[in-house]
This record gives sequence, C-alpha cells and structure tokens, in this order.
Amino acid sequence: MADPDTHGAGPNGGAGTSDRELFSEERSAEVVAQSFAGTPDPRLRQVMTSLVRHLHAFVKDVELTEEEWGFAIDFLTRTGHMSDDLRQEFILLSDVLGVSMLVETINHRTGGTSTESTVLGPFHMVESPVRELGADIALDGKGTPCLVSGRVTGPDGEPLAGATVDVWQTNEDGFYDVQQPGIQPPGNLRGLFTADDDGRFWFRSVVPRFYPIPDDGPVGQLLAATGRHPNRPAHLHFIAAAPGYRPVTTHVFVADSPYLDSDAVFGVKESLVRDVPEVDDPARAAEVGLANPFRTLTFDLSLLRA
Amino acid sequence: MADPDTHGAGPNGGAGTSDRELFSEERSAEVVAQSFAGTPDPRLRQVMTSLVRHLHAFVKDVELTEEEWGFAIDFLTRTGHMSDDLRQEFILLSDVLGVSMLVETINHRTGGTSTESTVLGPFHMVESPVRELGADIALDGKGTPCLVSGRVTGPDGEPLAGATVDVWQTNEDGFYDVQQPGIQPPGNLRGLFTADDDGRFWFRSVVPRFYPIPDDGPVGQLLAATGRHPNRPAHLHFIAAAPGYRPVTTHVFVADSPYLDSDAVFGVKESLVRDVPEVDDPARAAEVGLANPFRTLTFDLSLLRA
Ligand SMILES: [Cu+2]
Ligand SMILES: [Fe+3]
Ligand SMILES: [Fe+3]
Repeated sequence: MADPDTHGAGPNGGAGTSDRELFSEERSAEVVAQSFAGTPDPRLRQVMTSLVRHLHAFVKDVELTEEEWGFAIDFLTRTGHMSDDLRQEFILLSDVLGVSMLVETINHRTGGTSTESTVLGPFHMVESPVRELGADIALDGKGTPCLVSGRVTGPDGEPLAGATVDVWQTNEDGFYDVQQPGIQPPGNLRGLFTADDDGRFWFRSVVPRFYPIPDDGPVGQLLAATGRHPNRPAHLHFIAAAPGYRPVTTHVFVADSPYLDSDAVFGVKESLVRDVPEVDDPARAAEVGLANPFRTLTFDLSLLRA
Repeated sequence: MADPDTHGAGPNGGAGTSDRELFSEERSAEVVAQSFAGTPDPRLRQVMTSLVRHLHAFVKDVELTEEEWGFAIDFLTRTGHMSDDLRQEFILLSDVLGVSMLVETINHRTGGTSTESTVLGPFHMVESPVRELGADIALDGKGTPCLVSGRVTGPDGEPLAGATVDVWQTNEDGFYDVQQPGIQPPGNLRGLFTADDDGRFWFRSVVPRFYPIPDDGPVGQLLAATGRHPNRPAHLHFIAAAPGYRPVTTHVFVADSPYLDSDAVFGVKESLVRDVPEVDDPARAAEVGLANPFRTLTFDLSLLRA
C-alpha cells in the first residue's frame, strides 16, 4: 500500500548519475513529476503533476500486475476504437466512474442557494422546437399524461419573466425521439418555452421512463463484470436561462422510478427528485386538456446572478 | 485541494432518499466506490475501488474545468484512434507517464540481489537470429566497433552454463533493423547467444545511439506541450534466461549518451549504466577481429532462482 504522503513531494533524495534523479519504485511519482517541471503553461504543469502523483499512487496501492496493465491498455484502445462522431465511449466511461458528475458539480457549485446542476447527457443533439406555454409535447399522444409546471426565479425569489426553459425527455418506452426515427415524430417530447411575466411555465407531456446507457461496448462490459446495471432513473432534462443570470443544466427525477438510488452515471441529487402524484378529477383534466386521470410534476428553478 | 484522507473510506454519512447514498462533491469517491461493492471478483473490486479514489482525488485536487475534461476526452479518443496492430499509442502514453516502468519494477523486484529489469520496448518484434559466441551482429559493417561481453550467474555467483542471451540494439543512426527495411539487412544488430561453460558471452557489434520514441501522435503533442524531448539514451536490450532461474528483461545504457538523465520513458536505472571505453591496441583489435581503435562494454547479469 502506498502511503498517502507519497502524493506530496518528498525530500529530494536518491542518488543519480547526474543532476536529474533516476527512476526508482519508491520515488517514481516524484521523478516523473519532475520531468514536467519545465512545462511552460503553469496550469498544464499543475494538472500533469497531480495526475502523475495519483496515477502512480493507484498503481502502487493495488500493485498492478503486468497482465492487468495489458488489459487496461487493450480496454482503453477498444474504448477509443468504439468512439466516433455519434458514439463517445470515453464520455460513457467518465460517466460510469462518476467523473463527469464530479466535474459538473465542481464547476457549478451553488452553495445550496439555487437549483443544482447535473449532466447534460448525449440527447440534446437537436434544437428543441419553440412551443407555447401549455402545449402538449407528446406529439404521438402515447403514454401516461402528465402536467409539468414550475416557476423560474432569481436568488431573492424575484420572478424571471421571459426566462427560457428547454426541456427534453424519453417516451414511455425509455427512448428519445432521435433514437426512434420513423417511430417517434421529430421533436417529440422536446420543447423550448418562454416563462410568463411571473416566471411561470407549464406544458403537457407524458411520464418518462428509465433507460439504459449504451452498453454494447467496453463500458457495458465493465458494468457487467462489476455487477452494475446500465440504467438511468426516469427524468426530464431542463436548461433554464435568463439574461443577467447563470443558466442551469439539470434534470428533474421521478421519485418512484426504478434505479433512483443507483443511476449508472450518478446524476441524481436529492434536491432534484420530485413526486409525480396522480390527479383523478375530470373537471380539472378537462381544464388543462389532458385525459383523466393524469399526473402532475412541479419543478421550480432558481438561478444565480451572472 | 483534496485531503489525502479522502483516499480512504470516510464515515458513511450523507442523507439519501433511500438506502443507497446519492452523489455529492464531498463524498463522490465513496459513492462511486460503493457502486462497485457488488463486483463478484474481489481483485477487480479492489482495483476499481482504488482507481475511483485516486481519479476523484485528482479531479478535486486540480478542480478540473469542463474545458479541460473535454480536452482529456478528445485526447484519449485520438490516442485510441492512433493505435493499431503496428502502433500502440496508449503504451507510449503509459511509457511517458512512467507507468510502464512502475509496473515493470513492481512486478520484478530484485531486492538489489540481481540484475534490475527495465521495459521490453516495442522493437523485440522479430526473433533474434541464433549466433555463435564472438559473432559480429553489425551485418552491414557500419558504425563504431564495440566488443560486448559479460557473464551470466545465479544469486551465489554460480556460472549459468548454457544461459541464453538475447540482444537487440539500434545502429549508429538510432534505428532498429525493422525501422529501416531495405537499408539495414534483416536481423542486423540482433543475436541470440548461448553462454559458455563459465556463463560467459561475447560478441562484436557497434555502439548504439539514442533515438526518439514515435512523436507524431497525441503523446508527441503532450511531450511538446510540456517541454519534454522524446528521446531514449543509447542502450542495448538484453533478455537473459536459464533453466531454473527467473529470466530478466533489461537494457544496458551507454554512460556517455545524451539523454541519460532524461529518458523519455524513465527506463534508466543506475545499476544498468556502463562506461564504454575506447581501446587503442592494434594487437588486441586483431585478436578480437575488430578495427582499431574499438570500444568495449562489459555487462554481467545475475539471475534469481525461479
Ligand atoms: Cu491519489
Ligand atoms: Fe436523459
Ligand atoms: Fe530500445
């Protein structure tokens, strides 16, 4: 086991044949970090130095065998070969190791004062069609009807009139429109809304379903070998934005979805989970333009000032 | 900066909506490590848990930006696309980060009692031709003549009669035969020798030269961006083996070579560096069958019992 202290620079010991220290197991991280000491860009130097320290500490902690190292080289190569313009297997790898969520979270700290962010995901590949408040985004009329509504405010609760709310979600079978061309109409279950003078938005939709991330590549093999499932719990994607405020990219998660506590990409934050209760009220159903009974989801968004 | 303590499992705090803890910046490594808790193979579980801890600690230490994360995804993808049966860019990446040497060293600890190992390298791709002791492996007769000799022994100094000594090296221009088909004859500067009854071997060759690792890919770009050169100091590769003993894969490095203290792949160990002095003695030159003056390199190898 490597001592955590080896993550820092130790005393500059070691006998080399010259001014530069030669490689040794004990001081491997320091020796390699030293090779990056001449990096012109200080940020790149910092990143490479830290990467080397943690990578060497990992190899030492587990005493990686040559066979395991060879497997890792092959795994990374296959992950690269699986990646192209349509499929990004290294992003999937980053996702299932929680690195994507960590980077997202570090770069969008809210201090608990605004809506938390989560990963963008790969399905915002088409522009959401502009729609009127109240529109039904379930263009194919399939699924369990759901009224989605909320309010976009600033840090002091001030309504953000004219805020844009970009939404996309799966259908009841767990597929986005772009995954089912010819089955779902283009733009199905997507919409770009503009909040009213009180910052409010509302639209008609259906309840989304959990779905698996692509698991026919090396990342799927990793999940299978480690006893993990590839599923993400049911969610609606949101991007809320208003001039003078910081936009937020997030999801709202359906509280009774399977996999809520085991999202394959670790996207769930407690503040983003909402109950989606059923309303059995024919008069109200007629009023909002949905079949009775229907479900309701309320998601208010709070933005920080830019 | 992440505290080194975060590399270990902290107390199981955090409020989830269920039994499984949800993601948070503070406990990201623990939450993701927990997702691997059901891995059937205990070794894979250990490796993934450690990898997650060090990877998350790295991201937190440097507070990796989204732009840097995106660059890393693209870098890894290009590294994968550069790799095929002939070129392995991920091995090069492992090499220049000192990971290959670390894995090699961890898996071939000698305790200082036998010849140290170093990386195999990519140029042992053809079988070395069987040659008689004393043979000249410089088939093209070019370069500065050099007499190479040594003795293979066991841990108590016992001579290993019949030990095999597999050797390959560059020519005076820094190229292996396989890199210059049509210029160098096949098998140039390679030989598989059998030690005599006293464990001794000797052959005629030329002094090798330093050479760059392939630097026209992403790894070369990394070296350039960090102010590192791609060169390896001049060396001869050796694999020595004898029945009942552990074979050793190593190099001997030429003491006055450029880059001796800055090998791009960190292969140099002090115990593997040898002076290659010039001998100006026409009688001795005639005796060994080399032009006068010539240089001499002595490298004794000590193997551990299997
Ligand atoms: Cu670490
Ligand atoms: Fe999604
Ligand atoms: Fe070499």
